[in-house]
Amino acid sequence: MNRISIGVDLGGTNLRIAAVDEQGALVEKVTLGTKVSLGRDHVIGDMCDAIQSMSEKYRNSAPLLGIGIGVPGIIDMQTGLVRESPNLPDWVDYPARAAIEQRLKTVVILENDANVAALGEKWLGAAKDYADMAMLTLGTGVGGGLVLGGAIWRGANGMAGEFGHTTVEPEGQTCGCGNRGCLEQYASATAVVRLAREAIASNGGSALARAAHSDTEFSAKSIYNLAIQGDEDARRIFRYVGRCLGIVLSAMVNSLNLPIYVIGGGVSSAWEAFSPAIFEELRRRCMVYAATAPHDPLATNQGASAHVEAGPGHKTIITRSLLGSDAGLYGAARLPMIAETRR
Amino acid sequence: MNRISIGVDLGGTNLRIAAVDEQGALVEKVTLGTKVSLGRDHVIGDMCDAIQSMSEKYRNSAPLLGIGIGVPGIIDMQTGLVRESPNLPDWVDYPARAAIEQRLKTVVILENDANVAALGEKWLGAAKDYADMAMLTLGTGVGGGLVLGGAIWRGANGMAGEFGHTTVEPEGQTCGCGNRGCLEQYASATAVVRLAREAIASNGGSALARAAHSDTEFSAKSIYNLAIQGDEDARRIFRYVGRCLGIVLSAMVNSLNLPIYVIGGGVSSAWEAFSPAIFEELRRRCMVYAATAPHDPLATNQGASAHVEAGPGHKTIITRSLLGSDAGLYGAARLPMIAETRR
Repeated sequence: MNRISIGVDLGGTNLRIAAVDEQGALVEKVTLGTKVSLGRDHVIGDMCDAIQSMSEKYRNSAPLLGIGIGVPGIIDMQTGLVRESPNLPDWVDYPARAAIEQRLKTVVILENDANVAALGEKWLGAAKDYADMAMLTLGTGVGGGLVLGGAIWRGANGMAGEFGHTTVEPEGQTCGCGNRGCLEQYASATAVVRLAREAIASNGGSALARAAHSDTEFSAKSIYNLAIQGDEDARRIFRYVGRCLGIVLSAMVNSLNLPIYVIGGGVSSAWEAFSPAIFEELRRRCMVYAATAPHDPLATNQGASAHVEAGPGHKTIITRSLLGSDAGLYGAARLPMIAETRR
Repeated sequence: MNRISIGVDLGGTNLRIAAVDEQGALVEKVTLGTKVSLGRDHVIGDMCDAIQSMSEKYRNSAPLLGIGIGVPGIIDMQTGLVRESPNLPDWVDYPARAAIEQRLKTVVILENDANVAALGEKWLGAAKDYADMAMLTLGTGVGGGLVLGGAIWRGANGMAGEFGHTTVEPEGQTCGCGNRGCLEQYASATAVVRLAREAIASNGGSALARAAHSDTEFSAKSIYNLAIQGDEDARRIFRYVGRCLGIVLSAMVNSLNLPIYVIGGGVSSAWEAFSPAIFEELRRRCMVYAATAPHDPLATNQGASAHVEAGPGHKTIITRSLLGSDAGLYGAARLPMIAETRR
């Protein structure tokens, strides 16, 4: 009888709950809307109801290993407090873990959403079988996660992995974090739309402008659709996204020399449009990449074939997420399976 | 009877050899010139003669634990080959470790010079008692070392820790590594002199210009002397050095959330001139630093008082090297004491 754990991906838009077994097989997945506007108690209520009904369903068939929850914010692992969360503002400094545990009458593990996405890709995705890896998630913002020696690297205060706030342009766009010119300002979905509006304002970018006016939800996806149709203005935006990612990845590769870096999140669907610029920057800018690049980086970035062994002659792999939007869900389910200390 | 090990700091200018005991006490230190122009065989000969005479001297009083050598270059730890070395060009792809071991008839450990400096500061210096730390060495170039869990983090190919090649200005000064705008181009001794010559060329910077003409060895030190005398042009250069260091440290703190970052190398003597700008940038640019900064970062950066415990409420310490130019010597002597595998 396979044991299962329940993973939760608490996003600003969707609340997803899955039961996953120890081999990583999906048993069941439920998607709800996250009713952020109704307040944290309502969201926690919806989440706990769904967790409870799922755990009861499998009570007699599969022992429950535990519950892991990916939260879009910085979590204090000691206290279970959410320290910062742009998408769940009323969760900040609220003892979320204690509230959830009180309702469920069992322990849960909270973890930053980009960290669980990294853990998911490390367990079952593009970085499977690598002990060391980093992940960038290109969504509303740019999240980051670092896995070293098989475990999430949290740092001294549990705040590590914020690669999205590496400076790309020292005097660039102001970022919500207080810095200027962060990667997040050039490689998030929000940034892609802003860059498109800037292009329209400066040169009228005709197809972009038409899309912006006719498309009620003018999004990164609309701009990607124009790019794959060959629109030069849209293509230029994604080349710039790739350039900025390449600058930050160059620093990551030179600093950490990890065997593999995975790029996920919604914007990673536009991989074809921005990845050539990433590799161009890496070859120009990054001596460690230049010394360790695969002969054909794009070819080794198409999934399972990327799984080569790390070692002295190891090639540096930069690749897109294999699990896509499920990375965080699998990573959250993984948390109870590798928890170092059970309270 | 204390056991000793012999540490070697092989610089482009000086060749220093020390016997250090297991408690970190210096037993003896010898400084020779590195006769790079006479070729690698001559340098290896001088080094091995000095190691041999030192090891013979203590043969009857202190058992020898081993020999560690810090080399200014990227070392392949498996093969003992020097992979890259701007200061020892004829060592590249030469089996240096085998040649040294053949002469000494014993095993030696080769390691990158910035990595051994980090190890020295972690063992006996500013990062004493911290398991995790990073180091920047501001010398002819800008080196970097990362210590995680008490051990040097080498990465998949032994090339990790190259923080000096993080991009600060995407279209800035061309760097020897192939990138543009690397930290090394703004925070090394070489960079300080170049920035001074640029200031002279653009505005005639009178005191700088006089120093450049009268001082036969117009160096980073000459410019620092002008800065402490209050010369505004010289002070501006060091503020810019601090700004660039602050941008890179911001990325390091956001990414790694280490408890302590140590700045060493010759240029760190100008700490008073550049460090205020580092902290200004960190406060503005780095959310993890903003959340974890000590009340008075400069006060906690004056040595032994910086030794606080890492933990949930840990403060991020940015401080200068305590061991100064001896960091690499002590770190090299430390190598045989913590070697994971003895061949």
